[in-house]
Amino acid sequence: MFARVDHVGVAVSDLDAAIALHERDYEMALAHREVVEEQGVEAVLLDVGDAHVELLRPLSEDSPVGRFLAKRGPGLHHVAYGVEDIEATLAALRGRGVRLIDEEPRTGIRGTRVAFLHPSSSGGVLTEIVEVGGGH
Amino acid sequence: MFARVDHVGVAVSDLDAAIALHERDYEMALAHREVVEEQGVEAVLLDVGDAHVELLRPLSEDSPVGRFLAKRGPGLHHVAYGVEDIEATLAALRGRGVRLIDEEPRTGIRGTRVAFLHPSSSGGVLTEIVEVGGGH
Repeated sequence: MFARVDHVGVAVSDLDAAIALHERDYEMALAHREVVEEQGVEAVLLDVGDAHVELLRPLSEDSPVGRFLAKRGPGLHHVAYGVEDIEATLAALRGRGVRLIDEEPRTGIRGTRVAFLHPSSSGGVLTEIVEVGGGH
Repeated sequence: MFARVDHVGVAVSDLDAAIALHERDYEMALAHREVVEEQGVEAVLLDVGDAHVELLRPLSEDSPVGRFLAKRGPGLHHVAYGVEDIEATLAALRGRGVRLIDEEPRTGIRGTRVAFLHPSSSGGVLTEIVEVGGGH
């Protein structure tokens, strides 16, 4: 069902400092940078093996990541698992009583199809699933 | 430097419920279960691709994970990256001004050699490095 860890999402208040930490100190290559208006973030992906760290800077305080930062400060925000068929996975999870934030896939970073599970039935962990294309 | 995501650590208060979520709902195979007295936890590893989810149940309230749970509740606790040479990695990180919790490697789950970086200089993320053996 969950093929691999796709990425770990990290909420940051100072994006440049977070990029410097990961690029310079951790020697991760910066792979992608994008404003994802729908999620209210500027996001940066850095490579670590075949997975990524996704840095998330909120575009406003009144956004999910903005509110997360105000409440908890910078740090781990979510984990994302790669799946082959996102509709089938969502249907299976729904059938098992897992509460979904997104009943249908929506567009995530780099045009991927993603959906979030609700932390209330996911052990307090904001969990994302990402449909992994054949070429990924 | 960081070869891959080794695992994502999750603090749990109800270990059986967390195992059921990951094993039954997420279809992850339970790979290992161990009491790590030195870290004050009972830990469970579940497979996801070549990485793991590490569930952490504190052995007492007066332990790092116990205090984390009291303050923040269940949820994402740390991320761990696999490295080839943990001493060389620690030396490089130290030289770049990254603050270390463990100046020297210590023994982690399954006899691995691990060290933690301090969240204060790691973007608020409790970060672990794990020396990955040749056969891993």
